Amino acid sequence: MDKRPIGVFDSGLGGLTAVRELMRILPGEDIIYFGDTGRVPYGGRSRETIMKYAREDIAFLRSFDIKYVLAACGTVSTNGLGEIKAENNIPVRGVAGAAVRAAVRATRNNRIALIGTAASIRSGTYDRKILDLRPDCELYKKACPLFVPLVENGRIEKDDQVLRLVAEEYLAPLRDAGCDTMILGCTHYPIIADTIRDIMGEGVTLIDAGAAAAREMAEDLAETGSINTEGGEHRYFVSDSADGFRETAEMFLGSGLKGEVRRISISGE
Amino acid sequence: MDKRPIGVFDSGLGGLTAVRELMRILPGEDIIYFGDTGRVPYGGRSRETIMKYAREDIAFLRSFDIKYVLAACGTVSTNGLGEIKAENNIPVRGVAGAAVRAAVRATRNNRIALIGTAASIRSGTYDRKILDLRPDCELYKKACPLFVPLVENGRIEKDDQVLRLVAEEYLAPLRDAGCDTMILGCTHYPIIADTIRDIMGEGVTLIDAGAAAAREMAEDLAETGSINTEGGEHRYFVSDSADGFRETAEMFLGSGLKGEVRRISISGE
Repeated sequence: MDKRPIGVFDSGLGGLTAVRELMRILPGEDIIYFGDTGRVPYGGRSRETIMKYAREDIAFLRSFDIKYVLAACGTVSTNGLGEIKAENNIPVRGVAGAAVRAAVRATRNNRIALIGTAASIRSGTYDRKILDLRPDCELYKKACPLFVPLVENGRIEKDDQVLRLVAEEYLAPLRDAGCDTMILGCTHYPIIADTIRDIMGEGVTLIDAGAAAAREMAEDLAETGSINTEGGEHRYFVSDSADGFRETAEMFLGSGLKGEVRRISISGE
Repeated sequence: MDKRPIGVFDSGLGGLTAVRELMRILPGEDIIYFGDTGRVPYGGRSRETIMKYAREDIAFLRSFDIKYVLAACGTVSTNGLGEIKAENNIPVRGVAGAAVRAAVRATRNNRIALIGTAASIRSGTYDRKILDLRPDCELYKKACPLFVPLVENGRIEKDDQVLRLVAEEYLAPLRDAGCDTMILGCTHYPIIADTIRDIMGEGVTLIDAGAAAAREMAEDLAETGSINTEGGEHRYFVSDSADGFRETAEMFLGSGLKGEVRRISISGE
């Protein structure tokens, strides 16, 4: 048993959808969460800026004695995470690999749809990972840059007309391409899964990238005998005001938030 | 004549709508522009974070020997700019005061509409400024948090269905209140003025806060004999990649961009 906590970070609060899965399958783990709410969103920024921010986020998490880092941010996972892994002497996992493995297991017609931020789609990371694993699969992809601002502004209800119009515009080409599996490549997207499912149709399997990564992390910890069954303490840190964090966080966690919430300064002061 | 340059900053590129007016009325001034594209948008962040970022932005501009700072950001102008002015020994001007003066001059029925970011509306700055100047005016205000992401994603055409739907939702209550004057309290908004005018009706005067502030700055410089008529050099700095800056900047400037564009690091490294 390794009692050190798990570190999880995201640009904002989307990564809490991965924490939700971690809490379900690893209830005895201590978790340190950092949401970079002072600099959210990452998805429209350059690779260089994304990597700079990710390094700062991990450095903060590692100011605690953690055993594992989950980059619960689709944008970071697809922009230079390989380099960042090599810089760290503890495991750092992104969400892309686990999402691709889950998608190729799920597809029956080998047509996989991918939605993510502009930076994630531009990176080509998913294309390479699918090609490595299953060159017979076709990837249909679409950047959805307005989904994060919509979710961050609470426009998440199925009957929200703006969300509906934007989602129809983004998703119709993927639906019309006949994809039977869709990777939600940004940890904000599970919050609007109902709307996505409505447009894509019931027959399409939605892959929650954050949850898939959380499950693979649990397998890693099990293999090395590192699962903690005696903790369960959760601490949350953000880089903008902590006011209102609890209410918004509970939307992502799907349950009440237990544990300390604190604001920290992230930008090298 | 004071040949030192004018410094202008914004969270992103919206402040270029103020630069556009400065270039028109003060063609001989040298201008240093900083757009904090690595941390845009500011409008959903806390007052404390907005002030921290504004102080860093001004410190960067003041690493040049400038004579005047234009905070061409509606969010900064309404969140703690008074304190920041007191910390600086050169003039620092926001956009709110000039916009209010232009609006009370323009209104005939004393009903003024204000649109801005969530932080601008929450601040109550406009309410206080209008009350000081014209207690008989009524202010009808509406936070428009999706306008900045829409503009930043290039959704600016009059026939863009998403922009139209969002604008109709935000603006209909202001139109129905019978306002005859509307303050565009965020420097991104002049880019979508055509859509706003379509919804509000031709009879409503739109006040471009950035342009109004640029004109008052020109008056200040004229009063003190500080107008430079011999320069005209413009330099642009951003905190994310400078790739693609030129194309986007030209949309805000309404003309070709002349001058150097460079990326700098803003967060206290």
